[in-house]
Amino acid sequence: MSSILAFPDDLATQFGPYLPPANTDDLPSVTLTFASSLDSALSLAPGTQTLLSGPLTKAMTHYIRTFHSAILVGASTAISDDPGLNSRLEGAKRQPIPIVLDPNARWGITESSRVVQTAKQGKGHAPFIIISSNRWDDEVVVERRNMLQKYGGGYIGIDVDNLGRFKWEDILSRLRQELRIESLMVEGGANVINSLLEDEKSRGFVDNVIITIAPTWLGKGGVVVSPERRPNGEGQYTPPRLKEVKWIPMGDDVVLCGKLHP
Amino acid sequence: MSSILAFPDDLATQFGPYLPPANTDDLPSVTLTFASSLDSALSLAPGTQTLLSGPLTKAMTHYIRTFHSAILVGASTAISDDPGLNSRLEGAKRQPIPIVLDPNARWGITESSRVVQTAKQGKGHAPFIIISSNRWDDEVVVERRNMLQKYGGGYIGIDVDNLGRFKWEDILSRLRQELRIESLMVEGGANVINSLLEDEKSRGFVDNVIITIAPTWLGKGGVVVSPERRPNGEGQYTPPRLKEVKWIPMGDDVVLCGKLHP
Repeated sequence: MSSILAFPDDLATQFGPYLPPANTDDLPSVTLTFASSLDSALSLAPGTQTLLSGPLTKAMTHYIRTFHSAILVGASTAISDDPGLNSRLEGAKRQPIPIVLDPNARWGITESSRVVQTAKQGKGHAPFIIISSNRWDDEVVVERRNMLQKYGGGYIGIDVDNLGRFKWEDILSRLRQELRIESLMVEGGANVINSLLEDEKSRGFVDNVIITIAPTWLGKGGVVVSPERRPNGEGQYTPPRLKEVKWIPMGDDVVLCGKLHP
Repeated sequence: MSSILAFPDDLATQFGPYLPPANTDDLPSVTLTFASSLDSALSLAPGTQTLLSGPLTKAMTHYIRTFHSAILVGASTAISDDPGLNSRLEGAKRQPIPIVLDPNARWGITESSRVVQTAKQGKGHAPFIIISSNRWDDEVVVERRNMLQKYGGGYIGIDVDNLGRFKWEDILSRLRQELRIESLMVEGGANVINSLLEDEKSRGFVDNVIITIAPTWLGKGGVVVSPERRPNGEGQYTPPRLKEVKWIPMGDDVVLCGKLHP
């Protein structure tokens, strides 16, 4: 799991147009990246990790991570995968800061969580965890915050709406202001991805999309990327469609690059 | 809708390994072909047709049809799309026989259905409709059968199981025996495709898979290709995975070719 990965130059050069530019905006440039089956599933069931894509596309993910100031995942992904959230690319010049959306402080991060181990070994950064403001003084949060601060990580408190969800604009502006994040790679899980795709406003935050598709069907009951259908300003539903599309076959998988920003 | 289509030679040659061979088996060679969104939807809702893919992949479908003795769709597709089920490829040398699975004789085919019009114009064959044996003497079936027989089409009666479904082996062996079908292109809809993908036995009938994916999400509530998870002989579920995979970018879409036969 901790092996060093190499990504061939001839493939790497194809991603240029889909990597974040130098950014002086008020918000980070957002890249949405994930791997799914043909039936749009990320895994066989909630709380499980399913190996979908091959070694080349895995190396690609670690290559793309080096172009981003931060990587974001949801709490369910952090809990089920215990991810390192660093780049294991050979000679990686930059490591992204791990960001975990965890409104209810469900993720019991400890010294032995892989992301903390990775930071302690100097192979990545300690994470910042975004929680609901009203959890700020929870005992477990205070404990975990003290632990994370030793390694340069921490917590960020943001108000949730009446559905218990953060607003993407709050997440993005706080990451920009407090951590100076210029570019954010959103990697999952399905709830996070679907919420980013579900309406025109949230899609407006996404600049680049890089999706790996593996030639398999996970079958009914999987954890699926398929956004809710939210009407636009005129009360109509228009399915989101990528622009400036490039498909890059890579081993048995294909990688789809495109732009979502209007 | 009735325009003549051209498919470029440089693309056409890539499909050679995925087209049906000369066939002396007891069953037709089966090619599974459909177009879906990134979230594996064929259309926005049951009974509606959703334009997903671009002009090149449409021409590809009509090119591939010319290599098959028959095309098969389900009754829902016939009812919602009123399809021609012929090949409009420029200079098409062969037309497939349309086959419609309609166990309950739901499809009210008439002289003015497009598939009948197409046959009358000499641009394709009249269809054969497969119904449940116990519908054979239904008044509407007798009427429709008389009409279809004028154009060389007809009905085939096959017993259904206790779920009201045909067995694929019955469909395929009857098409081979009675219509001398050597190669069958299964085009949809979702129920037909899912039933072909759902267990090892039915997947064993599929030789080639040619899927078009368009870079859009139709969102939750679409008509989705995602098979039921049926355990294999050892009681395990193994997601079906394509072999000998080739991804062919085509306009904004990608075409996935592969083999499903073990």
